[in-house]
Amino acid sequence: MPRIVVDVMPKPEILDPQGKAIVGALPRLGFTAFSGVRQGKRFELTVDGEVTEEILAQAREAAATLLSNPVIEDVVAVTVVADAE
Amino acid sequence: MPRIVVDVMPKPEILDPQGKAIVGALPRLGFTAFSGVRQGKRFELTVDGEVTEEILAQAREAAATLLSNPVIEDVVAVTVVADAE
Repeated sequence: MPRIVVDVMPKPEILDPQGKAIVGALPRLGFTAFSGVRQGKRFELTVDGEVTEEILAQAREAAATLLSNPVIEDVVAVTVVADAE
Repeated sequence: MPRIVVDVMPKPEILDPQGKAIVGALPRLGFTAFSGVRQGKRFELTVDGEVTEEILAQAREAAATLLSNPVIEDVVAVTVVADAE
């Protein structure tokens, strides 16, 4: 069944304590290549049947209202993924 | 600066209470097109300079060891994103 993937990230100007914690932990584990980390969310919405333009519009609205907090988060992508993946 | 995006999702056989809560809330808000929701995580790792094969390998290892819990989660993608996005 096709899925719609919604990616949500904290806004750039918002402090991200989880990301900061990861950025502190990485070098202690030997991962020295990264200068910053931000942690966000990824949602997979399963759709029965075909993803129509209307369903995609529903997903975009759900992403903006239920899946993200528009005060502190941005919806960075709403993408359709076929069954195969 | 280029970023490496790491997507982590709960394994299919693992119960996902957050996803279940969202699937219950969607129809109450008028979003009736979705039969299932899974909630995972999305990490953005910032890289200073070019993303070499070695840095990508570091990101893959960090994804498998620090960013995900291999008992309950799968790393579904490790992707390089250019500055433009």
